[in-house]
Amino acid sequence: MEPAIKYRLIKTEKHTGARLGELMTPHGTFATPMFMPVGTQAAMKGAISPEELDEMGSQVILANTYHLWLQPGADLIAEAGGLHRFMNWPKGILTDSGGFQVFSLAKNRRLTEEGVHFRNAVNGDRLFLSPEKAIHIQNQLGPDIMMSLDECPPFFESYDYVKHSVERTSRWAERGLKAHAHPDYQGLFGIVQGAGYEDLRRESARDLVSLDFPGYSIGGLSVGESKDEMNRILALTTPLLPTSKPRYLMGVGTADSLIDGVIRGVDMFDCVLPTRIARKGTCMTTHGRLVVKNAKYARDFRPIDPDCDCYTCQHYSRAYLRHLFKADEDFGLRLASYHNLYFLHHLMKRVRQAIQNDSLLDLRAEVFDTYGYNAEHPKNF
Amino acid sequence: MEPAIKYRLIKTEKHTGARLGELMTPHGTFATPMFMPVGTQAAMKGAISPEELDEMGSQVILANTYHLWLQPGADLIAEAGGLHRFMNWPKGILTDSGGFQVFSLAKNRRLTEEGVHFRNAVNGDRLFLSPEKAIHIQNQLGPDIMMSLDECPPFFESYDYVKHSVERTSRWAERGLKAHAHPDYQGLFGIVQGAGYEDLRRESARDLVSLDFPGYSIGGLSVGESKDEMNRILALTTPLLPTSKPRYLMGVGTADSLIDGVIRGVDMFDCVLPTRIARKGTCMTTHGRLVVKNAKYARDFRPIDPDCDCYTCQHYSRAYLRHLFKADEDFGLRLASYHNLYFLHHLMKRVRQAIQNDSLLDLRAEVFDTYGYNAEHPKNF
Repeated sequence: MEPAIKYRLIKTEKHTGARLGELMTPHGTFATPMFMPVGTQAAMKGAISPEELDEMGSQVILANTYHLWLQPGADLIAEAGGLHRFMNWPKGILTDSGGFQVFSLAKNRRLTEEGVHFRNAVNGDRLFLSPEKAIHIQNQLGPDIMMSLDECPPFFESYDYVKHSVERTSRWAERGLKAHAHPDYQGLFGIVQGAGYEDLRRESARDLVSLDFPGYSIGGLSVGESKDEMNRILALTTPLLPTSKPRYLMGVGTADSLIDGVIRGVDMFDCVLPTRIARKGTCMTTHGRLVVKNAKYARDFRPIDPDCDCYTCQHYSRAYLRHLFKADEDFGLRLASYHNLYFLHHLMKRVRQAIQNDSLLDLRAEVFDTYGYNAEHPKNF
Repeated sequence: MEPAIKYRLIKTEKHTGARLGELMTPHGTFATPMFMPVGTQAAMKGAISPEELDEMGSQVILANTYHLWLQPGADLIAEAGGLHRFMNWPKGILTDSGGFQVFSLAKNRRLTEEGVHFRNAVNGDRLFLSPEKAIHIQNQLGPDIMMSLDECPPFFESYDYVKHSVERTSRWAERGLKAHAHPDYQGLFGIVQGAGYEDLRRESARDLVSLDFPGYSIGGLSVGESKDEMNRILALTTPLLPTSKPRYLMGVGTADSLIDGVIRGVDMFDCVLPTRIARKGTCMTTHGRLVVKNAKYARDFRPIDPDCDCYTCQHYSRAYLRHLFKADEDFGLRLASYHNLYFLHHLMKRVRQAIQNDSLLDLRAEVFDTYGYNAEHPKNF
């Protein structure tokens, strides 16, 4: 059987571990490294349409298994013909396992070898998520890429706890693989955990690689540790993963972390950041963050980012966006969300070009310089 | 001097007073009868973009003088190059005078011959709106079509009150005409008032027509009176207005009232209804209103209106829209708003075709039958 997800390595950059590649999915072949926008509830925040995602260069988008399981229900989405059809998105979709949300959003959580018992924080219902259940739900949702159920322990959790957790996550990964009903058209990724412990990251990677997943996620990062610690774990982990498979760093979406992840061999990233900060009128620019609601932009008729050629920057001023945010007009959210998503897609396009030209470190220097970072004191862009 | 706004009557329908025509403005020539969407604060509700308005057939859109005067300020919009540029809308824009909002939203209102003193309900500022000020603000905003400051008394106000009010509105109309700085590229309309009193409507129309405005608005309707009363006043008023000038019925946007207005010779309509009801998940369809949030649509995978070819109906199901509304996703507002605006534009397109074919009464019968109306008990669609 051909795996549902394949990866083709086109080239490795000369001066770093950055990989230019292609991700082949049942819904198209996509250029990596890539940033994946998050449409948690089968819709993009800020009222961004699928057509707009496509226009700005989105290839694979995320949806969250936990949210969709609870509302509207995986069976309903299956009945609708799956997520692609339900939400009108013809390209790639990736879903997480639901585990992260169970651990962060649910109440009265009780973790056993079998799975996680918890209560739905919204209506109090008792629920149970097992590795098999997480796969079954994702089989119903129908994304191109699915995630194994994992536990994501805090980065500074004790060694003993993380060791037990990592070993259980490996057992869960194996159970999920066995439960997977559609390996021919949905690719299941294993998730490397291990917090900040290098030997546990090695153990996790070794266990999962032995199960021969079509791709590997790197979890448990960007959860409060420093950028240096994240980079240390990434540099350690990616060489343990097969070069013939895609690597996905979960939950990372700042310009500096994207570039530093790519440099260490990561192919895929996702984050809610661009749409989340857009809700507050915060825009990503090549000169750092711009909070367009601020009074100083009231009569500023320049675009958000004069260097940006997105729809928002081509047609609207900071003064107009500020007005929309002050007046509580939905169109402001849409324009700011569009800009931020475009910004990260455009950055990743430049990253891919820089890998092609072996000039990624130059791009890194430019980003860290002009975007308002420096290596010692990175702003959380 | 050529007036900024001209009207060309193409034909009058054989069996009714309906007029097929063209409205010529500095930003294009547009087909009438037309429905004009309302972008109160220089943005359409539901995060609809100008490009989408254009795509669905919008020709002239409205913005509200009162709101823009208070926020972000008419001087700021003038500095931005006017409303068209500020909000990225290249076709027609019409603004009201601000009077209606002063009478409905402001506090501590005191009406004198000179104008209206009131307090800004948001911040308590003392403000004053005179006929000259209303024109000055609209000269700064820069719409194609402006409105004279009028008082809109309640439909069932006493005869004496309305008589004084109508006469003052006529004096204000004359003062506004004199204050108008840009008659060469902004057309100022006079507003016929008179509540339900036929002789006062006649007096108002006669006074305003003698001032030779390039167009006439009919105000003070759709404010709580019955449809029969509205139709009675319309049938009385439009014959008093010159056939060579456009007629605009303010604040009307239900399918039945649009058709009944057209039949009595109205060329232009506006209403917040399509976007306002969309916020609650209520959609206009050829089978009556459909409240897509209702539980019965949870697993209904048909489009909102199977007879509709709008973007929303071509790509999304009732089940998906219901999910978006339940999950509080902005994209739901956008899809429902798009559908409702499209629905009214499409209706007006059919109205224009029916005038061309002298079959408007057939269309009226179809709408009143299939949309869920009847002449005796019209639903407030």
